[in-house]
Amino acid sequence: MSDRKYAIGVDYGTESGRAVLVDVATGEQVATAVHPYGDSVIDETLPGNDIPLPPDFALQNPADYIEVLRETVPAILREAGIDPDDVIGVGTDFTACTMLPIDDLGMPLCMKPEWKDNPCAWIKIWKHHAAQPEANRLNHIARGHGERFLDRYGGKISSEWLIPKIWETLNKAPEVYEAADRFLEAADWIVLQLTGAERRNSCTAGYKAIWSKREGYPSDDFFAALDARLEHVVDDKLSRDIYPLGHRAGGLTQEMARMTGLRPGTAVPVGNVDAHVSVPAATVVEPGRMVIIMGTSNCHMVLGAQERIVEGMCGVVEDGIIPGYFGFEAGQSCVGDHFAWFVDNCVPAAYHEEAGARGLSTHQLLEKKAAAQKPGEHGLIALDWWNGNRSILVDVDLAGLLVGATLATKPEDIYRALIEATAYGTRVIIEAFDKNGVAVNEIVACGGLPERNRLLMQIYSDVTGREIRVADTAQAGALGSAMFAAVAAGKKAGGYDSILEAAQHMARLKDVVYRPNPAHRNVYDQLFAEYQKLHDYFGRGRNDVMKRLKALRLQALAGA
Amino acid sequence: MSDRKYAIGVDYGTESGRAVLVDVATGEQVATAVHPYGDSVIDETLPGNDIPLPPDFALQNPADYIEVLRETVPAILREAGIDPDDVIGVGTDFTACTMLPIDDLGMPLCMKPEWKDNPCAWIKIWKHHAAQPEANRLNHIARGHGERFLDRYGGKISSEWLIPKIWETLNKAPEVYEAADRFLEAADWIVLQLTGAERRNSCTAGYKAIWSKREGYPSDDFFAALDARLEHVVDDKLSRDIYPLGHRAGGLTQEMARMTGLRPGTAVPVGNVDAHVSVPAATVVEPGRMVIIMGTSNCHMVLGAQERIVEGMCGVVEDGIIPGYFGFEAGQSCVGDHFAWFVDNCVPAAYHEEAGARGLSTHQLLEKKAAAQKPGEHGLIALDWWNGNRSILVDVDLAGLLVGATLATKPEDIYRALIEATAYGTRVIIEAFDKNGVAVNEIVACGGLPERNRLLMQIYSDVTGREIRVADTAQAGALGSAMFAAVAAGKKAGGYDSILEAAQHMARLKDVVYRPNPAHRNVYDQLFAEYQKLHDYFGRGRNDVMKRLKALRLQALAGA
Repeated sequence: MSDRKYAIGVDYGTESGRAVLVDVATGEQVATAVHPYGDSVIDETLPGNDIPLPPDFALQNPADYIEVLRETVPAILREAGIDPDDVIGVGTDFTACTMLPIDDLGMPLCMKPEWKDNPCAWIKIWKHHAAQPEANRLNHIARGHGERFLDRYGGKISSEWLIPKIWETLNKAPEVYEAADRFLEAADWIVLQLTGAERRNSCTAGYKAIWSKREGYPSDDFFAALDARLEHVVDDKLSRDIYPLGHRAGGLTQEMARMTGLRPGTAVPVGNVDAHVSVPAATVVEPGRMVIIMGTSNCHMVLGAQERIVEGMCGVVEDGIIPGYFGFEAGQSCVGDHFAWFVDNCVPAAYHEEAGARGLSTHQLLEKKAAAQKPGEHGLIALDWWNGNRSILVDVDLAGLLVGATLATKPEDIYRALIEATAYGTRVIIEAFDKNGVAVNEIVACGGLPERNRLLMQIYSDVTGREIRVADTAQAGALGSAMFAAVAAGKKAGGYDSILEAAQHMARLKDVVYRPNPAHRNVYDQLFAEYQKLHDYFGRGRNDVMKRLKALRLQALAGA
Repeated sequence: MSDRKYAIGVDYGTESGRAVLVDVATGEQVATAVHPYGDSVIDETLPGNDIPLPPDFALQNPADYIEVLRETVPAILREAGIDPDDVIGVGTDFTACTMLPIDDLGMPLCMKPEWKDNPCAWIKIWKHHAAQPEANRLNHIARGHGERFLDRYGGKISSEWLIPKIWETLNKAPEVYEAADRFLEAADWIVLQLTGAERRNSCTAGYKAIWSKREGYPSDDFFAALDARLEHVVDDKLSRDIYPLGHRAGGLTQEMARMTGLRPGTAVPVGNVDAHVSVPAATVVEPGRMVIIMGTSNCHMVLGAQERIVEGMCGVVEDGIIPGYFGFEAGQSCVGDHFAWFVDNCVPAAYHEEAGARGLSTHQLLEKKAAAQKPGEHGLIALDWWNGNRSILVDVDLAGLLVGATLATKPEDIYRALIEATAYGTRVIIEAFDKNGVAVNEIVACGGLPERNRLLMQIYSDVTGREIRVADTAQAGALGSAMFAAVAAGKKAGGYDSILEAAQHMARLKDVVYRPNPAHRNVYDQLFAEYQKLHDYFGRGRNDVMKRLKALRLQALAGA
């Protein structure tokens, strides 16, 4: 044992799990290890089975999650060369809603021979989209009943969330529904595996299961209106015991200690979600600063002292991000994905050659060329809806738009216009929060994009008129999980008594600050007015051409 | 001398001139020769001078036109091995408005040492765009005076046309205006060179010089309202003697006969314009069939028995295409140019490699991939305004639009959407004619695109709901000029007494017919409704975002 204490954060992503060993006093990330899931995302056939899965299925194998612990935790202990006695806690975060049916002992049904060939017995991950009919029906009924919970979710429950996914199982595989003792978020299941205790966390319950601290779940009457068989789903298949983030779920079991090389009883906090756990890792534990996790998509998180209803937010959850505050979440469904699509599909050979000759990636070359322009110079404006619009329109049937192209338009022009479009989309979200009394005075960015694209950061600052700082970690999820682990361990064990305290010591920002350029802001204000006009025209029903094009596309593909 | 008689057509394009020797009885194209202009398009500095030209200047050297005759006519006579006595006529067609100032002997001012360093002394070709301020002012004044001639030109006189170009010379180089005995279309100047006679043709006079058979030029009062110095421009610098197409301008001069190897006195018809002369070469000498010359841009020509006012047409001119009819012209400013832009700027390396491996051009590969789709399958719609909109909106400040892109959108999807957009644009033009009593029952295509892109032809047929036939000549311009030469020679000399008769014998269609596919039409009717809605929203002032983006672009480029 030494004076230095450590916490481990394990971040479960879509393709792999990553463990990071963090110095509790300083936040230094001492060692890291990644393990890809053996079965990755299961969307064609189940393991050991060659029957094709239905469309829109996206499953995972829970054994892969255990393998992550078995491989990565010993690896980081070895790499750091530390005494396991000095590890005071191990925390986890997960994609969500990523859910599974379990038996009364916590065993996933898909791990039992009698259920292994039933797709609904497996883990449905966040991007499983086969419950859209159930989500549509749920929203229709909820609106009919005037259910107020809709307001907390921007007016719409997503097909990605827990209740539609459970209902889908009831419809497609009632025998699985029947056999399931409970349905659980993977975020809570991994904690159950680590500690032997089921301690459902307030983040997934609030953001994905229509639960709120003050109102609980929707009423049994509402569930009965969905489907008589669902009337008692909460008591029969879920649980009303929900624990705030940072709460100590329990101590590591003997078996898990043996597998990971950690000490039995090591503190484990309740589960968390990858995006939400990044907020304190980006130093934000109070209202006023928005955290944007920028990657393939953007996730916007901000805290407030009161519950506010904001158009198109993904959710507002008390204790959902930081205990004691209302956590607001909004999102853009396509950001880095835009740029990747563009580079893969729209950039001519000469650019790839020039990039190669100059020792740059194609993204870097495009960024350099685009950065040489003044705002407005390319004459373009885009709507960033290549993958629909999450916030604030909550409409997956919207699609991309580019206006202003001429024969002089170059690839870097379109690249820059796409970056700007995502910045305008973020400004729409910020203004929706601001208008409804949720202050956004400043932005902290984390995720992959802020590290790689300075032009993008400057454009976001110019467009939003906010200063932007960048979290000083490439692994905000794992760091946040380690921080909550230190809170679960508590001050006496060498950790912290609150996530605020943990953030003061373990999280920090880079020195760089992006500040709005006044001349750029003026042009971007004009361009943003154009964006808003197009946004409302195409997004609020004045011209539903995007939906009609999608319907024609589906007809054509169906051979109709 | 033999029984076979021949006519020569010389087609003066933007980069080169082409002569074709045609069998008068059959239309067979016996020999052809091309000569590129030595000075090409002069847009940087004048020959023998290194002072930069002002922006938007596009000039040419008249000596290059003479060189075309000197090089190509002897070459085709040699190639065909025929007796010059058997050549009964030589006709010409030109780009327009391509104009020049001459002295009293017909000598271009730019060929005189005292004027050779003055840009306005040279030939301003059709795409010389420096007279926009004069065109704007002219249109403003004409609207203020309620000048009815505007109706004949879709409401707007183009900066490419004769009066703005003359006025520009008066403003920028009054000494050139003063020194010029007359201003002339190059189409008429080359006839003056061939015959020694100035015989201005009804086509360029009507389409480019605001002349009509019934009303003549605008009044001296109108010209005085433009600029007091222009009051007598028609009588001082032009001519009121205008001759119908096919009229014999004269016989070949001794000097020209010596240079070309043809006989003195060989019949020469009045000049003509490349697009317009293609109409009879596409067999069309009567109302009801529209000729579309498809290349970098589209030119739409249709005949009518009455004058009709059609929104956005380029012009309606009595005797302007075929004597005895009103010739209607409309156009799309960006067609092949769209596809070329797309291939140059938006197609990834993998496509070029695949095309190479399959022995295809990139265009052919995209066409193959796009042809495998059903209408509507790509989910996209575009407005074909990458180079503004000629007909029917007459607005160069409009720009391109693409709506419906998703992360699944592939290059062939956009390629097909651009083709379809140009087809929708053509349907808008056809419907404007139809609605105003100018029947378009069928289409005949000529130009470069119909030869190369079967998918495009089928889409045009499906979208317009019209059968499309294709002219059986790759050189419709030169063939048409040879046909008018045969008319100028007359029946006694072995030619024809009318262009109708010439068309019956010398022009033909290919066997291929593109017929609308009823299932495709149904989908395209729905897509066309979407196109129209976007067309009107962005094109008729409801959202002038394209103009505002252009203004911002110009500001940014000016460093404002």
